[in-house]
Order: sequence, then C-alpha cells, then structure tokens
Amino acid sequence: MANKIPTRLYLSEDEMPKYWYNLRADMKEKPDPILHPGTLQPARAADLEPVFCREPVKQELDDTTRLIPIPDGIQDFYRAYRPAPLIRAYFLEKALDTPAEIYYKFEGTNTSGSHKLNSAGAQAFYAKEEGLTSLATETGAGQWGTAMAMACAFYGLGLTVYMVKVSAEQKPYRKILMETYGANLISSPSNTTEAGRKILADDPDTGGSLGCAISEAVETAVKTDRCRYVLGSVLNHVLLHQSVIGLEAKAALDKYGVKPDIIIGCAGGGSNLGGLIAPFMGEKLAGKSDTRFIAVEPASCPSFTRGRYAYDFGDTAKITPLIRMQTLGNGFIPSSNHAGGLRYHGMNSTLSKLYHDGHLEARAEVQTDVFDAAIRFMKVEGILPAPESAHAIKAAIDEALECKKTGEKKVILFGLTGTGYFDMTAYMAYNNKTMSDYVPRDEDLARGFATLPDIPQNR
Amino acid sequence: MANKIPTRLYLSEDEMPKYWYNLRADMKEKPDPILHPGTLQPARAADLEPVFCREPVKQELDDTTRLIPIPDGIQDFYRAYRPAPLIRAYFLEKALDTPAEIYYKFEGTNTSGSHKLNSAGAQAFYAKEEGLTSLATETGAGQWGTAMAMACAFYGLGLTVYMVKVSAEQKPYRKILMETYGANLISSPSNTTEAGRKILADDPDTGGSLGCAISEAVETAVKTDRCRYVLGSVLNHVLLHQSVIGLEAKAALDKYGVKPDIIIGCAGGGSNLGGLIAPFMGEKLAGKSDTRFIAVEPASCPSFTRGRYAYDFGDTAKITPLIRMQTLGNGFIPSSNHAGGLRYHGMNSTLSKLYHDGHLEARAEVQTDVFDAAIRFMKVEGILPAPESAHAIKAAIDEALECKKTGEKKVILFGLTGTGYFDMTAYMAYNNKTMSDYVPRDEDLARGFATLPDIPQNR
Repeated sequence: MANKIPTRLYLSEDEMPKYWYNLRADMKEKPDPILHPGTLQPARAADLEPVFCREPVKQELDDTTRLIPIPDGIQDFYRAYRPAPLIRAYFLEKALDTPAEIYYKFEGTNTSGSHKLNSAGAQAFYAKEEGLTSLATETGAGQWGTAMAMACAFYGLGLTVYMVKVSAEQKPYRKILMETYGANLISSPSNTTEAGRKILADDPDTGGSLGCAISEAVETAVKTDRCRYVLGSVLNHVLLHQSVIGLEAKAALDKYGVKPDIIIGCAGGGSNLGGLIAPFMGEKLAGKSDTRFIAVEPASCPSFTRGRYAYDFGDTAKITPLIRMQTLGNGFIPSSNHAGGLRYHGMNSTLSKLYHDGHLEARAEVQTDVFDAAIRFMKVEGILPAPESAHAIKAAIDEALECKKTGEKKVILFGLTGTGYFDMTAYMAYNNKTMSDYVPRDEDLARGFATLPDIPQNR
Repeated sequence: MANKIPTRLYLSEDEMPKYWYNLRADMKEKPDPILHPGTLQPARAADLEPVFCREPVKQELDDTTRLIPIPDGIQDFYRAYRPAPLIRAYFLEKALDTPAEIYYKFEGTNTSGSHKLNSAGAQAFYAKEEGLTSLATETGAGQWGTAMAMACAFYGLGLTVYMVKVSAEQKPYRKILMETYGANLISSPSNTTEAGRKILADDPDTGGSLGCAISEAVETAVKTDRCRYVLGSVLNHVLLHQSVIGLEAKAALDKYGVKPDIIIGCAGGGSNLGGLIAPFMGEKLAGKSDTRFIAVEPASCPSFTRGRYAYDFGDTAKITPLIRMQTLGNGFIPSSNHAGGLRYHGMNSTLSKLYHDGHLEARAEVQTDVFDAAIRFMKVEGILPAPESAHAIKAAIDEALECKKTGEKKVILFGLTGTGYFDMTAYMAYNNKTMSDYVPRDEDLARGFATLPDIPQNR
C-alpha cells in the first residue's frame, strides 16, 4: 500500500497547540449563563470559587476570548503523552469496502486510557499554582479518576475520588490503578458525606450515579482546607482544555488538505465531543464549511435525543449551580446494566445550545450494536476501544456503509476517545451474549423530568 | 522547558525500517547451531518445517544475511501501530536530579500492550502466505498470546493459545481479551494433550510453566491439519522481527546525533532485548562504539546470572530441537509468586553467546525493587509499566543515580516493552505489601540443572 496519506499522522512537538480554542467566542447565539441556584441570577466568579479552582472559573465564565494560551507548565505535561495520533482507518475502509475516507483521533495511548488527561493535567496545574494541597472529584467508568490520579501524582497533590458504586464493582482494576498513583478511592454513595448518607437512606441498594458522586465530591471539597472540586466533563472550561483534540486533528488534516464532511463523537457530558468538534464547528458557524456534526449517545442515557433543554442542577443533591442543558433530570439514574461511561443525566451547555439551534445532530444506540461495531473495528484496526468510544465507531461505520450505498466518497472523522482495557467484564458479557439492551421507558424518563427544578426559565 | 530534543520522538512513516537487521551476520563468533535432538546434528529446514512456518525457519537458520526485507504485507501491519515513540525521560531525569540523559523506546501503545506484536504480525503473515488455516502457541503473562490473537484476527487465521495456568488465574482479563479477538484459550497444563496429561499426572497442582505450555502447543500444531506452532521469544527469527525496535530507536537518535552509552533491556527469552540492542551491538562488534549493554532479569528466574551455557530443550516434554543457551534446565519452574512474564528457563542463543563472550552484561533484580522503580517512574512519566519492563526501569534508574554520584552525563537508553494494564493484581500485592521476593536456592537450581540433556556438548 503506497499511501500519500500515512496511516498514522503525528504532529511534531513544535506543531502542538499553544492555545486552547474557546468556541463560545465564535457563537453569535451563546449558551445561556450558569445561574446561582438561590438568586437565579448569572453566577459570578465569587459564587463558583469556593468550589472550583480560580483559573478554571475564569475560563468557565469567559465566552468572548477566542484563544486562551496554554501555560508552559501544562504544555510540558501535554508533551508527556501528546501529540495523540490521527489515524487513517485504511483497514476498516477496506473491510467495509466503502468509498469513504475514515479518520480517527486516538486519545487512548496514555495510561489513563482516554482523553480525560487533557483537562486533568490543566486543572491539577492550576490547583498547584493556586497553592492548594488536594482535590476531590468523582468518576464513573474510571477514566476521569485515573486521569486525575495521574495528574495529581505528577503535580504532587492529594486526591479523593468518589467512584460510582456500580462502576467500582464492574472495574476493580480501575480502583487499584488509581490507588497505585496515590489516590484515595471511595465507592459512592458512601457514608463519608451528608449527601451520600441521605442517598443511602433513601435507597440502600442503589448502584450510584455520577450525580450522586458529584454531590459527595463537592461536599468534601468545600469542607476540606485548601481543597477544591474538579470535574472531568460537562463544564465549558473542560471543553476548552479538550479543544487540543480538535486543534491537533485539524492541524494534521490541514497538512494534507483534507476537509471532513462528517465529524462524529460519543457524548456523555460532552468533553470529548466538544473538544473534537470545536475548531471545525467554529469554521461552520463562520460559513466556511458544510461539515455535519453527529453526537452519539447510549440509548440507556439519551440526554440529547430524549432529554429536555432546561435549567438543571449538575448533581443529585442539588447543590451545584444551574446549567441550561439537554437533561434527563438530575434524579435520572441510568440502568446498572449499561457498561462504561456516558451515564450523566445532562450535557454540556454549549453542545446543548448547538443541538437546540440545529448545528449538531444526535443519535442514540443500544449496547450490543455498539459492541458489534467495536469488535468489527478491533479485528482490523487492532485497537480495543472503550465502550464509550465504540458509540462513535458505530456511527462512523453506519455513515461509511451509507457511502457504499450512494457511492459518495465522504471524509469521516471520529473521536476514538480511549481504550477498553478496564472494560473486559463488559466484553465478556458481550461474548457470552448476556449483555442487556435496556432502554428507559417513557415513565422512567418522566420520573427524571419530575426532578427538574421548578423555576421560571423551565416553564 | 524549551528542548532541542523533543519529549517524544516519532519517525515519519517513510522513515520506518524496510529491512530487519540480522545481528548474527555481523558476529564473527556465531551462536552454536540448533541441534536435532535425535541425531545431535545441526537441524535442517526439513527438521523444523513440520513444527514452524517455512519462512521463519529459513530466517532461523540464516546467520549470514545482514538485512532481510520486510514484506509489504508486514509493513502494512506495522503501520497500524508503529512507529513506536522514543521518549526522552525529562521528568524522570528531573525527579532523579541526574546529569544523565535517559531515553526509552515505548512499545506499549498497541492493544497487545507490548512489543510482541512485531513478531506476531510477521509470523501470522507468513502462515497466511503459506496457506495455513490456524496456529497454536503458548503464552505466559499473556502479552504474546494477545499479540497473536490480534495478528490472527487481522489475517483471518484460527488460533489456539495455551496459557500458563498461574498466569491465567492472575490475569482473567487477559483471557477475555484474547477470546474477544477470537482465540481459543486453554489453561496449561491441560488434558487436551499428551504432554499436558503427563505433567498433570506427575504434579496435579502445578501452576504450569512456559516450558509445559510450549510442549502442549507444539503437540497441538503437529497433530492439526494446516496448523503450525509459533513462538514469541527465544528463537532467532523472533529477534530478527524485533530488530524494528532497535532500528527505529537508532534512526530517531541518529537524527539528533545522540549516541547511547548504556542500553538496557529486560530479559525473559530475549525478544525485546535482542531487538532493541541489535543495530547498536552490530556497531560495537565492528569497533565503532563502546556502548555497554545490560540485560535485566528477575532474581526468581536468573538464566543469565545463575544459569549454565549448555545445550537444552526449549520445552519441558523435550520435544523441541536443542539450543545452546544460558539455561536453568528445561525442568526449572519459577515460583508462582513471581508476577508477570520473564519466566522462561532459557535464553535466546545469540544473546547467550554475546553474554558468554563478554559483550553483554546481566543483572538480576527482586520483585519489590522492580516495583519500587515502576512506581517512581509512573508517577512522573505517567506510564504504567508492565512488571517485565520495570526490570529495565530499575537498572536505568540505578545507572542514572550512579551518574549523579560521579557527575557523568551518560546517555542511557532502555526498552519500555509494555504496559501493566493486565497486571493490576501484582500492583495490588505491591500496594498491600504482600509481594514476595522469592529467590531460588542453590538446591532449587540444582534440580533444574539435573534436567539438562546428557549429551557430549554439555559435558
């Protein structure tokens, strides 16, 4: 195979991004502001700083600065595992016999096994700069917790991780991995917080949810000296850090004059999807491209395709600010049959706004279809994908097969956010045909929507 | 940090090796020939072809051709996951406060989690070309079995893997991973072969060994139609394929004019060590460098440092040809307390010869020291190393600390062969301080040496 375009496209170190890209600055229609839950007024930095680190708060509230310099200390951290490869899926193209060109940005070559490290490193750096000594966070599938454990080990910070109980049970090795990096792991809900005790009192057998774990982590951060809370998705400063994914992908494609027709990302809270599409969406909003953007979510947690665009809390205990987003209601808890991440009740506000305004499409997929796609992919491309990432693979294969039908030679780019090394019990369930394709019924969703806050904006 | 030398050095696709390098061609003193165990005469291709694929047999017996072209089909396969990064360990250097420059060639960014894919892809390609339909092999820690499972999925071949029982129990997820790629996994010793049944009859509670598993896989290959046996280490054709590691590392260092003073690799059967050092050793043997080469083996399986240089069988059932090598005796079974791979009783014949002739140093390390080094490394470099690879890290850190004492600014290169994602039970034992530092007693070794074949060359 003599290819003009290499199989693996690496940027050189000096081609790596020096700035993050803040998509909101290029949106004429901005996402609605975060609200203080007491006053229902837009949150100010002073409202958020007791919970979050200072610089991320500044970034969270900034919807006008297009390019935000990546501090040298974070560029150093990025150089420990970036640039991530952009891979031309020649083998998958051949196996599908499609005229489409398929590319994927692979963020799984670092030990955290996902893109989460891009924001973990940034947030730990800022915490260190601010003089904090520890951080608290939650993790679902474990990718974010691992990334934070690595970042905190690197910068010499303590870390407490509340891990969603059902995930901790499915993934004992994730727990050991985080502990090996020095983190303190607690299964959520736990008896270590008021929020956890309340949830356990209501439902002692709950498998937990990200919403519960967030409540516990926030409470711990607020009650601990020189400690703050860090979040790995949903918020706009996280998407800002993740813009390195899209910036690197775009720089690599630009070198070869390749313009994607379709960009696909899996979506839980939106960190990978938002980071991947940011610079491409900026071009589209400026009228410079016709690229289609597709979010792929699990049918078991369908915040885009069956959620409401409403103000909601980020957590179950209703202690966070209010975010206007696609949401299933803060009380929604996805079935424990669902493997992997993408279990959050809401969605990043910028992506929610783009979806609401018609710039972003979304689709929901059931688990076995997603794993079918994963197996098809791994046998020819060689990479064991995380269940999360496999949602994007599913859509990429579908779009490539559509091209086969129509004969169109479209360029498809998708985000392969991570690897599935710690998801082997899910693969075992798939191999054994014991995997469930649970989809919430309308009455399940109704129970979630009933937990939306009853405030003027939601009526 | 404004570095002249990037943190991660990637070759471009067109800089990747087109030829493997056969170090034996540049050795004036060649390794002794493989012997037919019946005749004690040098084995001919016809003796080996009932067991191994044709082209690898040719490569095995060829000690005169320096450069062997990598077929296009294998170059395609390599492009799916190579080039592997050469990483400058800036963070480790800083943490150690050493004047030494440390580099490592990281082979763990593919799903098999190690360098083993370099030979698995080659051997599966040749099997397919030869018209075979399946392969049989063994695996210890699971890296080789995973690599073969991936390669067989890629080329559409069946695969039976005999996995050393103690490893299968320590690493259930490795088993699922191989099965997910389509391999048929059998714990060894098993009742599926005569060799296995005999071993079980002698010792029903044995944890197995690579030697046993090899016997079972060879027997299966020979008895199955259009099937051959493949081995992931020890043999010279495997080292030939693994020379891509050293060739890529050397090409990357040459670009920056960097000459390593010390090259370090972990050693089980020798595949990684032999591949990494090959082109550098070639220069040394030609009098063009003074590089030191250090093999690091586990104290629990010390074939270099406490073994004998003798003709021995490759397997426990004594059905393979005889190889002159550093060996503990084919009946030696390392303690089941030892985590990870590097459990083989013997050592590649080329490396054994180089050691015997004084071109290669060796040292043995106990487990907790190795894991101490792994933790020190992972907290700053971010990569969770395989226990095997951590042996090389241990020696690299020791050499760097020696430089700190002497003030010498040496250049150290080591092979980081893989990741430890499937070794979390070992890390847990380390974290819990339940890890054993078992070292065989002289009488344990004597029992192994008693199994050496009683042939003229050994007297």
